[in-house]
Amino acid sequence: MPMPDLKRAPLGERLQDPLLVLEVERKTFGDKDCTVLTLGNSTGRLATAPFWGADQLTVAGIARSDVVQVIGEVDQFRGKRQLKVTSIRALPKESVDRRQLLPSVGDVSGYWKTLDGWRAEIRGPRLAAVLALFYDDDDFRRRYEECPASLAGHHAELGGLLKHTCEVASIAKQISRVCRANWDLVLAGALLHDIGKLESYRWDGAFEYTDCGSLMGHVVLGSLMLERRVAPIVPAPCTEHELMLLQHLILSHHGKLEFGAPVQPMTLEAEVLHYADNASAKTASMADVLGDGDGFTPDSMVSRPDWRIDRRRGYRGASDWGREPGT
Amino acid sequence: MPMPDLKRAPLGERLQDPLLVLEVERKTFGDKDCTVLTLGNSTGRLATAPFWGADQLTVAGIARSDVVQVIGEVDQFRGKRQLKVTSIRALPKESVDRRQLLPSVGDVSGYWKTLDGWRAEIRGPRLAAVLALFYDDDDFRRRYEECPASLAGHHAELGGLLKHTCEVASIAKQISRVCRANWDLVLAGALLHDIGKLESYRWDGAFEYTDCGSLMGHVVLGSLMLERRVAPIVPAPCTEHELMLLQHLILSHHGKLEFGAPVQPMTLEAEVLHYADNASAKTASMADVLGDGDGFTPDSMVSRPDWRIDRRRGYRGASDWGREPGT
Amino acid sequence: MPMPDLKRAPLGERLQDPLLVLEVERKTFGDKDCTVLTLGNSTGRLATAPFWGADQLTVAGIARSDVVQVIGEVDQFRGKRQLKVTSIRALPKESVDRRQLLPSVGDVSGYWKTLDGWRAEIRGPRLAAVLALFYDDDDFRRRYEECPASLAGHHAELGGLLKHTCEVASIAKQISRVCRANWDLVLAGALLHDIGKLESYRWDGAFEYTDCGSLMGHVVLGSLMLERRVAPIVPAPCTEHELMLLQHLILSHHGKLEFGAPVQPMTLEAEVLHYADNASAKTASMADVLGDGDGFTPDSMVSRPDWRIDRRRGYRGASDWGREPGT
Amino acid sequence: MPMPDLKRAPLGERLQDPLLVLEVERKTFGDKDCTVLTLGNSTGRLATAPFWGADQLTVAGIARSDVVQVIGEVDQFRGKRQLKVTSIRALPKESVDRRQLLPSVGDVSGYWKTLDGWRAEIRGPRLAAVLALFYDDDDFRRRYEECPASLAGHHAELGGLLKHTCEVASIAKQISRVCRANWDLVLAGALLHDIGKLESYRWDGAFEYTDCGSLMGHVVLGSLMLERRVAPIVPAPCTEHELMLLQHLILSHHGKLEFGAPVQPMTLEAEVLHYADNASAKTASMADVLGDGDGFTPDSMVSRPDWRIDRRRGYRGASDWGREPGT
Amino acid sequence: MPMPDLKRAPLGERLQDPLLVLEVERKTFGDKDCTVLTLGNSTGRLATAPFWGADQLTVAGIARSDVVQVIGEVDQFRGKRQLKVTSIRALPKESVDRRQLLPSVGDVSGYWKTLDGWRAEIRGPRLAAVLALFYDDDDFRRRYEECPASLAGHHAELGGLLKHTCEVASIAKQISRVCRANWDLVLAGALLHDIGKLESYRWDGAFEYTDCGSLMGHVVLGSLMLERRVAPIVPAPCTEHELMLLQHLILSHHGKLEFGAPVQPMTLEAEVLHYADNASAKTASMADVLGDGDGFTPDSMVSRPDWRIDRRRGYRGASDWGREPGT
Amino acid sequence: MPMPDLKRAPLGERLQDPLLVLEVERKTFGDKDCTVLTLGNSTGRLATAPFWGADQLTVAGIARSDVVQVIGEVDQFRGKRQLKVTSIRALPKESVDRRQLLPSVGDVSGYWKTLDGWRAEIRGPRLAAVLALFYDDDDFRRRYEECPASLAGHHAELGGLLKHTCEVASIAKQISRVCRANWDLVLAGALLHDIGKLESYRWDGAFEYTDCGSLMGHVVLGSLMLERRVAPIVPAPCTEHELMLLQHLILSHHGKLEFGAPVQPMTLEAEVLHYADNASAKTASMADVLGDGDGFTPDSMVSRPDWRIDRRRGYRGASDWGREPGT
Repeated sequence: MPMPDLKRAPLGERLQDPLLVLEVERKTFGDKDCTVLTLGNSTGRLATAPFWGADQLTVAGIARSDVVQVIGEVDQFRGKRQLKVTSIRALPKESVDRRQLLPSVGDVSGYWKTLDGWRAEIRGPRLAAVLALFYDDDDFRRRYEECPASLAGHHAELGGLLKHTCEVASIAKQISRVCRANWDLVLAGALLHDIGKLESYRWDGAFEYTDCGSLMGHVVLGSLMLERRVAPIVPAPCTEHELMLLQHLILSHHGKLEFGAPVQPMTLEAEVLHYADNASAKTASMADVLGDGDGFTPDSMVSRPDWRIDRRRGYRGASDWGREPGT
Repeated sequence: MPMPDLKRAPLGERLQDPLLVLEVERKTFGDKDCTVLTLGNSTGRLATAPFWGADQLTVAGIARSDVVQVIGEVDQFRGKRQLKVTSIRALPKESVDRRQLLPSVGDVSGYWKTLDGWRAEIRGPRLAAVLALFYDDDDFRRRYEECPASLAGHHAELGGLLKHTCEVASIAKQISRVCRANWDLVLAGALLHDIGKLESYRWDGAFEYTDCGSLMGHVVLGSLMLERRVAPIVPAPCTEHELMLLQHLILSHHGKLEFGAPVQPMTLEAEVLHYADNASAKTASMADVLGDGDGFTPDSMVSRPDWRIDRRRGYRGASDWGREPGT
Repeated sequence: MPMPDLKRAPLGERLQDPLLVLEVERKTFGDKDCTVLTLGNSTGRLATAPFWGADQLTVAGIARSDVVQVIGEVDQFRGKRQLKVTSIRALPKESVDRRQLLPSVGDVSGYWKTLDGWRAEIRGPRLAAVLALFYDDDDFRRRYEECPASLAGHHAELGGLLKHTCEVASIAKQISRVCRANWDLVLAGALLHDIGKLESYRWDGAFEYTDCGSLMGHVVLGSLMLERRVAPIVPAPCTEHELMLLQHLILSHHGKLEFGAPVQPMTLEAEVLHYADNASAKTASMADVLGDGDGFTPDSMVSRPDWRIDRRRGYRGASDWGREPGT
Repeated sequence: MPMPDLKRAPLGERLQDPLLVLEVERKTFGDKDCTVLTLGNSTGRLATAPFWGADQLTVAGIARSDVVQVIGEVDQFRGKRQLKVTSIRALPKESVDRRQLLPSVGDVSGYWKTLDGWRAEIRGPRLAAVLALFYDDDDFRRRYEECPASLAGHHAELGGLLKHTCEVASIAKQISRVCRANWDLVLAGALLHDIGKLESYRWDGAFEYTDCGSLMGHVVLGSLMLERRVAPIVPAPCTEHELMLLQHLILSHHGKLEFGAPVQPMTLEAEVLHYADNASAKTASMADVLGDGDGFTPDSMVSRPDWRIDRRRGYRGASDWGREPGT
Repeated sequence: MPMPDLKRAPLGERLQDPLLVLEVERKTFGDKDCTVLTLGNSTGRLATAPFWGADQLTVAGIARSDVVQVIGEVDQFRGKRQLKVTSIRALPKESVDRRQLLPSVGDVSGYWKTLDGWRAEIRGPRLAAVLALFYDDDDFRRRYEECPASLAGHHAELGGLLKHTCEVASIAKQISRVCRANWDLVLAGALLHDIGKLESYRWDGAFEYTDCGSLMGHVVLGSLMLERRVAPIVPAPCTEHELMLLQHLILSHHGKLEFGAPVQPMTLEAEVLHYADNASAKTASMADVLGDGDGFTPDSMVSRPDWRIDRRRGYRGASDWGREPGT
Repeated sequence: MPMPDLKRAPLGERLQDPLLVLEVERKTFGDKDCTVLTLGNSTGRLATAPFWGADQLTVAGIARSDVVQVIGEVDQFRGKRQLKVTSIRALPKESVDRRQLLPSVGDVSGYWKTLDGWRAEIRGPRLAAVLALFYDDDDFRRRYEECPASLAGHHAELGGLLKHTCEVASIAKQISRVCRANWDLVLAGALLHDIGKLESYRWDGAFEYTDCGSLMGHVVLGSLMLERRVAPIVPAPCTEHELMLLQHLILSHHGKLEFGAPVQPMTLEAEVLHYADNASAKTASMADVLGDGDGFTPDSMVSRPDWRIDRRRGYRGASDWGREPGT
C-alpha cells in the first residue's frame, strides 16, 4: 500500500497508516489544555487536531520519535489542514522501518553510481586506497546513504548527505576544470569533507545532534574518523604528507574561522572544495525557501525573512520570456 | 619577431624590443638618487638596473604608460634578474599597439564560441533579444574582449573579463543543474553581471579606474548601461518585470552589502550567479598566489600572507599519490 | 464633518466614520477563534473588540487596505481602549480618498515654498535645469508630496518624504556653511537622494514595498530615475561629468557599504548630505520613541529597547532648569 | 615683521625667522647618516635639507618642540621644496611665544561672540549657571581658546576646539529646530562635550596626549571636570537629576560603545549632539583631504586612501554648472 | 520559623509565609483573563496558580516589589509546581525586611574577613588610605555587602557584588603571581572596579537599574565616586598620578570599547584585573546555566541556547573517571 | 665558561663565543650593499655591524639557524649597540647544543615538580591513566619541556610551553575553586590543551611552523595526538564518553570560533580552561611589552601600539604609594 501524501492529501481523505511522531506539544489556553501531535512520513508532515481535556489520555504514552498507527481524516481549521484522529496507538519500534517515515531523497543508487564512477577514474593509487577505506566499506555506505546533510537546513532528509556530496563533487569538478585544480584530490575532498556528520547526527527518530556532534563538531569528527581508519593499516595506504593534505581539505572546508573551520583553505583544492560546498548548500536553501508556500503571504511575491537564507527574503516572481510552449 | 619572454629570459640574453612602461620610480639613497623603470610586455614584467645621477637624464622624459624601444641585457643583482639598459627611447604612441605589451589571456575566440553557443540555445526570445543588444554589437564585443576583470587581482589581463565571464557561466551552469535554477536566466546574469567594468576600467596604458568607476562603481554602472540600452528600443525588447529580474542579477551579484551589493540575492538565479562569480574569482586568485614564486621564501612550502587571498597563506606542497607516469 | 481623533477619543465616544483597514488578524484561543481589525485614519489607529465565532461572518469579506464605514463606540478592555463595532461595511474604493485615512504630515505647502525658494537661488543654470526636470514636473510633485519617507520608521506618513527632504536640506545648509561645501550642489543632493522611494514604496493602501523596491532598492532606483529623465533631453541639460557628480550624491548617501550604499562618499558635498540625512532620520526616530507612551512601563523613565533606535532605550526625564513660566 | 608663509614661499626666498621644531629625524643610508628637521610656524611646515656627517653637530642639541632662529633659503630637491639652512640656533624658551609658531585658526573673538550670544539666551537659570562655571572663568577661556580639537585629525590647530565647538553648536541648532529638541540643553551639550580635551592634550610644543588623556580618555575626563566644578558649590547650581542629564550628554556623544562612548544616547538632545559632532568632525576631515594636494598624484582627480576619512578616497573634480562669473 | 524552600518544596506542602512579589502578569485567553503572580524569597521563586475572572479582585491591589502574606499549598499543573493560594494580603512595607525575601549569597562575613585581611597587608600607605575611604566606611560596607553583581546575570543576588569582588581578587592574586604584577595595586583594582554598581542598581524591591545607572553606566559612576571621595580630603590621600592609575583600573576593566570600557587596559595590573573579572563572571554564568534544570529538555545532556552564556549551549554530562567513592 | 649576556654586554666587551644565527639580512643602500647578521644565545640577541662590499664573502656561506664561532667587540652606532666582528666561522651542527643558544626559561625542574605533584593528587584513576600516556612518557617530556608556547608572542622561548602550562594550571586551579569546577578535569585540560604545539612548531633552529602546524593548526593536532595515544591501548584507559570530554577541552580552549576554536566551551571545566589560558597568555604579552624598552620613545611613559597586545599601547608609569623601602 502506498504511503499517503501528507503535503497534498485533500480534505476528507481517510488515513489508516503508520506515521512517525515528530513533535509532541502540550498547550494551555486559559484553564483548558490540549495536546497536539505533529506526524510525518517521507512525503511530509501534518498536525493533528488538538486532543482536549481527558482525550489527552489517548496520547499520554506517545513520545517524540515513536511510530503510531493512526486512523483519521483530513480536516481543516481556519483554512489550515489538520488530521482529525479517530484512533491512534504506538507500534512496537521494530515493527516498522522508521526510515520510511522520514523525509528522504528517495532512491540513492544514481548517486552511488556517479560517485563510484568518478572514484574509478582516480589515477593515484594511494588516493584511491584511502577513499576505498570508506567507500568500499559496506557498513560505511549503509550509514552514509541514510545520513541527512543537516538537521533542518539544506538537504535535511534521509540520503541528503549523499545527494549533497554528489552535488558538491559535480560543481567542484567544473570549478576544477576552470582553475586547473587537481580534480582527483578535489573529489577526495568532496567525498571526505562531511564524513564527520555520520557521528554528529542521529536519524533513528527525528533528526538530532549526538553529544559528540555538539562537543566536537562534524569538522573535527571527520578528521578523527580519517585518522582512525588510516592509522591501523600496515603498510600505510598513503604517506603522512598525503594524509595531511586530506586532513587540510576536511578541516578547511568551512572556509573561515567564524564558520567553524579550524584552519582556512591554503591549497587550490581546498579553495575549490569550499566554494563548491557553499554553492550546493546555499542554493539548496534558497530553492527550499522559494518552494515553501508557507513563507509567503498569499498575495505577495516576496517572502518573509527566512533563517535558512540568513534572514534574507526570497522573490518568487518569474517569467517565460516569451518562450514558446514546449520548448 | 617574437616577443621576449620577460618572466623567463636567462641571464645574458640580449633584448631589443618595444616595452611598455608600467612604473617610473625615483628613489633616494642618502644624497644619491636614481630612477628605476618597470617595463612589461604581454609575457610579464622586468625592472631595469637603476639609472644613477646624471644618467637619469636618459629617462627624464619617460612616463608611465609610454612605450619605449629598449636595447639591453638581462643581468642580475643579488640574485634578482634586472635589465641593464644600453639604450632607451620613447616611441610615438601610434607606432605600437600597446595592447600587445599588456598581460593578456591570448586568443579569445574560444571564449566567444562558447558564450555565443550558449546564447544560441536560449529559449526565451525576449531574453535572447536583451542579450543581443550587447552581445551582437560589434563595438561592445571589441571592448568586452579586451577589458580586464580587475586591475590587479583575479584575471587582471587583457581579455580577463571575457575569460572570467566564461568561467562564471560554466560553473553557474553546473550549479543550475544541481539546484534546478533557470539556466537561461543564469546565463543572462553571467553575461551581464560585470558589463559595468567596461566603464569602470581603463586599459589603454596601465590598468586604472575611470572617475566614474570610482564614483559610481561597476555594479551600478552595469545597471545603468542595461537601462540605457533597453530604454530607447521601441517596442521594448522585454517587459518591465523581466528587466527588473535582470537588474536584480546585476545588482545582487556581490552577495552582501558589505561587498558592495546594493541588494542581496532574492532569486535562485541570483544566488547561483553570486556563488559562481565567487568561485571563479577566488580560485583564480589562489592559483595566482600558488603560481607566484615571489610569494615564497626559497625553502618554504608556505607563502607569505597575500592580499589576493585576504591575507591568507598558500601551501604549494603536492603529491602524485603514487600515480604512474603518463596516466 | 471633522475626522475623529483615534489617538485621543474618550471612552463612550460614538464613531460613525470611514476608516482604513490597516490589519486583519485572526486569532485562536483554545477552540475559540476571533477576528480583530486594526482601523486607522490620519489621526492614528485603534483596534476593534474581537469578533467572536459566527460574528466573524460580519467581517469575512474585509481585507487589508479596504475602507470601511463603521458605527461603534469607544470601549475599553483591561485598560486599553478598543472600538466596539455595531455596524461595519466596506465602501467602494472610489467613494473615499484613502489618503485622508493614512497618517499624514498635513499641509505640505510650506515645505514646497521652502524648497522652491532654495531652488530659485541656485546659480548654476545646468544644475537648476536638472532639478527642474523633476521639481517642475507636476506629476512628480503630486507623487513626491504624498510619498512616506519609510514604511514604519522615521517620517512614515503621507508627505513624510517631502518633510524629510526639507529637513535634510535645512540641516545640510548649515553644515555646508560650516565646512564651506558647495551649497547649491548639496541642495541638489538633498532633492535627489531619495527620489527612488517613489518607485520603492506603495501608499495606496497600507504602506508597502513594491517588488522593484525589494529587488533593486531605492538608492539604485533613484539613480536609474535620474538617468531616465536626463538621457532623452537634447541637448543634454548638463555635462556627463556633472551628471556623474549627481549620481555620486544619490549612490553614496547611505555612507557605508553595509548600510546599502554601493559607493562611499568621496566629495565634500556627498559627505555633508550623508550626515544631514542621518541627522534628520535618526533624531526623528528618537523623538518618535520618546513620544510613544506604549514604549514605557507606567512608572519608568526608561523605555524598553526599541528597534527604531537600533535596540537602544530612550529616557524621557527632563527638567525646566528653573526656567520662569512663560519664558 | 610678518611671518614667512612656509606653504607657499617660492624657491630662492630667504628666511630669517624663528621656527618651531616639529620633528627631528635621524636617518641612515648605508654607512652615511644625516639629520633632517621639520620646522613649522602658524602658516605650515617645511623640512630642512639633510645635515650630513659632521654637519650634524650643528643640530646636535636641538630637540622636538624647541624654537630655533634659522637663516636659510628655500631650495628644492627632486621637485620638493626644502629649506637649505645657513645658520640655526635654539632660542630660550621664553623669548618667543611658541603658540605663534603652531597652526592656528587665527582670531577667535568671533567664535566667543557667537557662543556667548547663544549662552545669553538660555532661559533656564540653573543651566546657565552650570555653563558659567566654565565659560565665565577666564582661566578656562584662556585654555579653551587655545586647545586643538584633535592631535592630527580634524581641527588640529590652536583654537580648533573652540571653532569645532561653534560648528557643532550651529549645526545642532538647526537639527534641534527640525526635531524639536530642547535647544538650550543641546547648546549646553555642545559647550561641555569636549571639555575633557583640555586635560587630554598638550599644545605647549607639538600637539601630544597627556598621560591622563591616554589612560582615561577625554570623554571621561570631561565628565570628571564637570563633577569637580559643580560638587564644591553650595548651594548646588543645579539638581542632581539635571547634572545627570548633562553628564549623559558628555558621556554619550561618541554615539556607540565601539567609538569610545561608555553609554549610548538615550535622550533627544544627546542624539542631536552626537550627529552634530559627527557632522562637524567628518566634513572637516573630508575638506582637509580634498584640500591637501599631497594626497593626489599630479594627474589624478582621485586621492590616495586617507586615514583621516577612514581609508576612503576623495574626489576633487568639480563643476561651475554653467554659472555666470561673478554670481 | 525557617523560610520555606521554594525551589524544593514538595507537592502538598502548606505555606504560610511572607513572600516578595517579583512579577505580576495579566494574561488573556480568548475572552477569559487571569492574573499570575511570581513570588519569591531568598531560596528561590514560585508562580501562583492563575487567579481567574472575579478572583482577580483578590490580587487587584498587589504590585511588583510588594511583600505579601500568603497561605497556600504547593500544587502542580501539567507537571510544573505552582502555589495554590488560599489567602493573600499585602503587608506594610516596613513590617518585613524585604532583603530576606530576595536571593542572597547568605552570610557575608567570610568575604569581609578575606578582603580585609588582604587589605591589611598592603604595603603602600597611600594605597591603603584610598581604599580605606570606602572600605572603612560603615555606610559603604552596609550597602556594598547587599548589592547584587548584576540584575539577572552572574551573582544576581544580595551580597553578589561582595562575593564577586572576593572571587575577582582571589583569581587576580594568582594571575599576579604568575605574571609578576603588583598585587597590592591589583587588589585595589578588584576592590574599586565595580563600586559604581552601588549607584547603578536598586535592590529595595526587585533588582532594577537606577536612572543614573542607565544614563551613565556603572563604569563611569565608579570613576566619579572615586573622584568624589578623594577630592575633598586635605591633604590628598594620594598623588594625582596615583589617582590616575586607580581610575585607569576602573575605566578599563571591561577590556574593550565594545564592552563598555571607555579605555582599554594599558598597565599590567589593569590587564590582570580585566581577565580576573571575566573569569569570575563568565564561569559563574556557565555554572548557573548547567545548574538550571529548566534549560534542558528532560532527556538531553545539552541545554538550549542560553543568553547568559552568549547563546551558547551547556553540556551537563560528567564522569567520575573510576574514582573510588569517598576519595 | 659562562655565556656572554647579549642584552647587557657593555661597550668594548670582547666576545669569543658560539652564537646562533637568527637572521641573515642583505640590504642595499644605493649602489652599495651589505649583510647584517642577527646573532643570539639564550640571554638575548645582538646584530653585527654591517659587512660591506667584498667583506660579505666572509659570511657568504652562513645561513639562518647555523651556529657560528665569533670573535668581536661590542661597539655602537648612533647609540645602538652592535657587534663588530673580527672573525666568524660556522661550526659543525653537532659540535654545539643549539638549544643553549635559544631564549629559554632556564631550569624547568620546578615546573615539572609542580605539575607532577598535581597529577599525583588526581582521584579518578582513568583520568590519571590518560594523562600518564603523555606525562609518564620520557620522550614526550623531553620534547614538551623544550617546546616554546608561541613563535614570537607569549612565552616564545625554550621551555615556554611548559611554563605556560604551569601558569594556566595554577590560575585555573584558583578559578575552579571559585566556581566549583572539577579541578582534576580542569588540570587534565591544562595539561592537554596545547600538546598539539609539539607537532606545530620546530625549534631546532629559529622557531618556525611545521607544515602540518600551518595546514591543521595546533588545536586539531592536539586532538589527533590524544586520539592516537588512546586508541591502540587495550583495554581502553577511559570510556568513550570520557575521551569526548577531554577532546572538548582541547577543541574549545580558544573560546570562540573566530579565534580558531572549532567548538565553543560547553562545560564548566572548558570555560575555566579558556579563561585561564587567556589570562596566562595575555598578561605575559602585556608584561613583555612593558619590559621592552624599544617600544617606548625615550621620554614617554606610553608605548607605541604593539601587535603583541592587539595594537594597544602600554603605560609604564608606576608608583610606590609611599611604601617604606624594604617592605
